[in-house]
Amino acid sequence: MYSESLSKRLEDLGAVEGSRLSVTKDGRNSVGTLMPHHEFSAPDVLIIKVKSGYNVGIRVTPETTIEVLEKPVERVRKETPVEFQKGLPKLVLIGTGGTIASYVDYRTGAVHPALSTSDMVNAVPEIREIANVDATVLFSIFSENMDVDHWQRLAEEVAKQINDGADGIIIPHGTDTMGYTAAALSFMLGDVPKPVVLVGAQRSSDRPSSDASSNLMACARFCVKGKKSGVYVIMHDTSGDDSFAVHIGSRVRKMHTSRRDAFHSINVLPVAHLDKDGKIEMHIEGHEVTSEKAVARTAMEKSCILLQYYPGMDPALFEDIIMRSKGVVIAGSGLGHVNSNMVPLLKKACDKGIVVVITSQCLNGRTNLNVYNTGRDMLSAGVITVWDMLPETAYVKLMWALANTSSVEEVKELMRTPLAGEMSDRRTIDV
Amino acid sequence: MYSESLSKRLEDLGAVEGSRLSVTKDGRNSVGTLMPHHEFSAPDVLIIKVKSGYNVGIRVTPETTIEVLEKPVERVRKETPVEFQKGLPKLVLIGTGGTIASYVDYRTGAVHPALSTSDMVNAVPEIREIANVDATVLFSIFSENMDVDHWQRLAEEVAKQINDGADGIIIPHGTDTMGYTAAALSFMLGDVPKPVVLVGAQRSSDRPSSDASSNLMACARFCVKGKKSGVYVIMHDTSGDDSFAVHIGSRVRKMHTSRRDAFHSINVLPVAHLDKDGKIEMHIEGHEVTSEKAVARTAMEKSCILLQYYPGMDPALFEDIIMRSKGVVIAGSGLGHVNSNMVPLLKKACDKGIVVVITSQCLNGRTNLNVYNTGRDMLSAGVITVWDMLPETAYVKLMWALANTSSVEEVKELMRTPLAGEMSDRRTIDV
Repeated sequence: MYSESLSKRLEDLGAVEGSRLSVTKDGRNSVGTLMPHHEFSAPDVLIIKVKSGYNVGIRVTPETTIEVLEKPVERVRKETPVEFQKGLPKLVLIGTGGTIASYVDYRTGAVHPALSTSDMVNAVPEIREIANVDATVLFSIFSENMDVDHWQRLAEEVAKQINDGADGIIIPHGTDTMGYTAAALSFMLGDVPKPVVLVGAQRSSDRPSSDASSNLMACARFCVKGKKSGVYVIMHDTSGDDSFAVHIGSRVRKMHTSRRDAFHSINVLPVAHLDKDGKIEMHIEGHEVTSEKAVARTAMEKSCILLQYYPGMDPALFEDIIMRSKGVVIAGSGLGHVNSNMVPLLKKACDKGIVVVITSQCLNGRTNLNVYNTGRDMLSAGVITVWDMLPETAYVKLMWALANTSSVEEVKELMRTPLAGEMSDRRTIDV
Repeated sequence: MYSESLSKRLEDLGAVEGSRLSVTKDGRNSVGTLMPHHEFSAPDVLIIKVKSGYNVGIRVTPETTIEVLEKPVERVRKETPVEFQKGLPKLVLIGTGGTIASYVDYRTGAVHPALSTSDMVNAVPEIREIANVDATVLFSIFSENMDVDHWQRLAEEVAKQINDGADGIIIPHGTDTMGYTAAALSFMLGDVPKPVVLVGAQRSSDRPSSDASSNLMACARFCVKGKKSGVYVIMHDTSGDDSFAVHIGSRVRKMHTSRRDAFHSINVLPVAHLDKDGKIEMHIEGHEVTSEKAVARTAMEKSCILLQYYPGMDPALFEDIIMRSKGVVIAGSGLGHVNSNMVPLLKKACDKGIVVVITSQCLNGRTNLNVYNTGRDMLSAGVITVWDMLPETAYVKLMWALANTSSVEEVKELMRTPLAGEMSDRRTIDV
């Protein structure tokens, strides 16, 4: 956000994002397109995109002169018809919004949040060499606003596109909640017959360090050459542009606010890595694509909550929200513990038929409530543990399990059964 | 926990933990001390400690014979007076409980949760070579039961021991909530003049892989040779026994449920590493010890909560617990976002004078609400961000700040000022 005084000055000049400006400071003149404020710049630093394509920051003082050369041109979005290439597989991009979807638009300095087929193909022309690409914009929102309803519409669209002939689905998505959406699609789409890949960008493409197009290309390659069915997230594996990780959708978490390699598989290796030339190294065999139909089971019980245990957590304060829920996921401490003073509340909830699922706020490792007394008391109260499942995935799965079963016992059994790679099989770990 | 049938059988025999058993299976006899059930063993596997000191697991079938040779002897705890060695610094161990405190006791199979001076010195005799060691048991609880009151008593005890002449304080602590306690002591003890080191064990000492004594020795060495004041956590840095990391108390988080190197510094390097010979490599200069008095400012406002934002979070459900609090820490998604539908509630809270602090559930990286619209709306609503501070540390600091200031503005300013290394200085990051 530009500082108040700089914003005021730009407003008075009639300068908006995309305006062509001439800025003169200390006798030096720069001409370029006004860009949104850069997250790492001070509020009085004006960002303009100069001819070279790079962004330049100029600290504006009262002595700096700013002149508007041109208003932004409303870009005519030419929908160049892309020629269908026989023999190539068909990929469908389903746009949802986020940094990656403002991809092409930032190049011009104008903000068009949506993604069109030609934008896409023009931006990453190499994709045309390996696939026919269709694109559709389902919604265009920042991912922090992604909600359960969006997951449902998205799952339905994925199934529809697969059943209409897509060989792979690529879902550009804001990174903030991409892990949650990936988990939701994993359960809703079950044994999906084709690859469904979520992808984001940590840097918008107006920045030289953007990861948008290389991530997209990695997705296309994994869909076309990998030929593995399932729900995945593909992002940079390192801070360079030379390695991409393919994560299981139910095992992945955003572990850094800004790094390009922010997404990590937790408690498992990534399914595969791709190098910069698109060579795929699989770490597990995975499931081959099939010609089955895709089915979306999208019912979700929204009356679920996710809580992290912390010292000083007051059971009296949380009683109401726990007792009003159908399902509760708690990220306990260590092996999954909460303070003993929480146990009576958990018992009351379990007695009422609320499903209480225990995970660990350590994220890595797995729960085990058999080791210490508090844990045993929690088990006696009726909670269940889900080993090495992420708290966020457990929350999503619980909503899905509650809506797709008919008894509490069935929900508990389902929660403790691996459905989409989200947890280790208890038979292999309880040795 | 042993299986129901095995527990029943042991009970009928009068066998309790610490009993000496003779177990015969398939013609092979083993004699040893009955141990608590091992967390990684199946429930029908009986664990006995044999003469060599190792634990043996025997899968008990109906054909297996079990005989009780001796009941456990209530161990006489000889408090061998430890000779004071002139010229050596004085370390004080303040016991709180946890796996590390059941250290010596597991060797005998009997459960004595507390730690005495002679137990300690006998267990890690090398400590006597470098320091005079006093020990006191403040409480003996599992760390998931550690509460705000315990933090307060602990801080007071630390200050008292330092003012009574301790050159360093070692606090054996359960690992589950050790990060929270370390953060609490960091703020309560402020510019503490001596090293205050929290230490845990991920494996109790009856197990060959125990990290208890090597972690303790590393603490003693860091206190005596490092001579740096401040609150730290020392644990294994690798899964081997060859490297120990010294973490800033306000920057450390348990990131694995069971690994010995579970504790990680987040967003900073560890302060120092120690190798197996006790050589200290400092990564920052740190503060030298002084002869000042220690002061414990232990007031805490308990009416604070910690919440993680997740898609589907219902503002109506959380309204009551937020509005009833004095301080709220939210681990938002990505740069610190929540769904737009949460913003009116945050505004209502801020308008009422509740301090709302935004952190990131990514844990790594730092918040920035200036980049996207939702973030700007959150800032307009009155929330504050605390950059790269851990959510858990922000929660602890908020309790402390609310109790040690007289206005909301002062709390906000304090939250955004590094006090104990818990965050980067905004002047160095908002460039």
